[in-house]
Amino acid sequence: MTFAMGKEKTLSEEYFVSANEANAQRELAAHILVSNIIDTATAHANALHIGNPDMEETGGGWVLSRLTIEMERWPKVNESYRLTTWIESYNRRFSERAFRVEDCRGETIGYARTVWMVIDTATHRSLGLSHLPLAEEYIDGSRAPIERQARQAPIFAAGEECPAAALTATADTRGYTFRYCDIDFYRHVNTVRYIVLLLNQFTLEQMDSSRLRRLELSFMQEAVYGMTVDIMRHDHEDGGGATFTLCPQGDHAHPLLFARLFMRQCETT
Amino acid sequence: MTFAMGKEKTLSEEYFVSANEANAQRELAAHILVSNIIDTATAHANALHIGNPDMEETGGGWVLSRLTIEMERWPKVNESYRLTTWIESYNRRFSERAFRVEDCRGETIGYARTVWMVIDTATHRSLGLSHLPLAEEYIDGSRAPIERQARQAPIFAAGEECPAAALTATADTRGYTFRYCDIDFYRHVNTVRYIVLLLNQFTLEQMDSSRLRRLELSFMQEAVYGMTVDIMRHDHEDGGGATFTLCPQGDHAHPLLFARLFMRQCETT
Repeated sequence: MTFAMGKEKTLSEEYFVSANEANAQRELAAHILVSNIIDTATAHANALHIGNPDMEETGGGWVLSRLTIEMERWPKVNESYRLTTWIESYNRRFSERAFRVEDCRGETIGYARTVWMVIDTATHRSLGLSHLPLAEEYIDGSRAPIERQARQAPIFAAGEECPAAALTATADTRGYTFRYCDIDFYRHVNTVRYIVLLLNQFTLEQMDSSRLRRLELSFMQEAVYGMTVDIMRHDHEDGGGATFTLCPQGDHAHPLLFARLFMRQCETT
Repeated sequence: MTFAMGKEKTLSEEYFVSANEANAQRELAAHILVSNIIDTATAHANALHIGNPDMEETGGGWVLSRLTIEMERWPKVNESYRLTTWIESYNRRFSERAFRVEDCRGETIGYARTVWMVIDTATHRSLGLSHLPLAEEYIDGSRAPIERQARQAPIFAAGEECPAAALTATADTRGYTFRYCDIDFYRHVNTVRYIVLLLNQFTLEQMDSSRLRRLELSFMQEAVYGMTVDIMRHDHEDGGGATFTLCPQGDHAHPLLFARLFMRQCETT
């Protein structure tokens, strides 16, 4: 895809929901939206010359620390939609980037917020942002009107010793081993592949009768090729979704990832 | 992404290999290329008014029957590449569509050929192409310079009764159950998800020391949500890849999919 390459505070790109990128509900698949959000962020950072191509000498690369998405409705198959991104804020370690999703009539149908950091792609340690020419004039500063993520609580299996404020799993622990296609440029598990893994915890029937309304992801540690994780699940009491933690197999005190998926029941399927 | 919408015989679109769309070898992930090939085909068909949006009244939709890709080299992370598509030929049931892949300097680095048919999206039966305004002036007709797929042979496990010309598996049969994200608009398993499943049969180490040179996919029957398949594998004698058949669990005489992946050893990793 071709992006405008001027040093503008916002970057917009149009996408089309092909049958290939639609889910079984004939709407944009959530993991495709996440991929396009990441790629639009990448394109804007590159246009501002604060992207990976400009960090080749320092060996730095942007990685996601948090992701929050809220969708009023999802674009349907054969519809176009538009993603617009801008920088909300930055500090010495993190940059917050917002996204607006508009449908083909220009109506806003969703927002997203991502929190990014720069790591040394060899050592995977944080490099901070101070080496970047991240100038004030690149910062749009307006806030996407969605809530920040609240503190996430770890999940322990029923019968496990678990600290106060932790959640108790309401489903059996499932295992998953990361394979070749789960791994990206950083040789760690790719965000889009986590989304697929999380959505796959729901049945087709559940997805026919509800829609993803809000998604929260918070990365704690990297997962790598061959690692087996335990997927801990706590269903929300109101039936409106589930909270997950992914942990190294058998080590439920050191989560790799917190996630919350909030669903909305829908009338028509 | 925004595509030109004129009724041209070819359609080209530029893509960028972000870190998000790169594999562990820091090159364009093969399943992302396949997704972009399908979406470029979709955009060209839509521009010619022979696409899914123009078949809403007849309830038709394009589905892939075959896919062949040959890559001399893969675009690297932070590189742009260009996909160009055109119609090679069509008959009453199938349309053949070719693709050229060019790197950022305009050098051709690969080709692909896809074979498509139109199904009734309710009954999943072939509708043929005769109802489409598939005019001769839309057909470019030039041939992508890659071999057609040869006849594929089914694979049976060692010890199974298998017909002449069948292959014997050289690896244990693996199982896989299709889940929510494997299913697309047609409520069948998406091509891109088959590519991920096939690539995941290789280890990271194998992929570090070799590159996918040619990929062949031939769809025999649809797979649906919840179906468990047996992945039958026959490694090529020269170490240069493997042939796969995917079959319904325990029913190795009625394959869903034939696939061949030809690899090239590489000097540097």
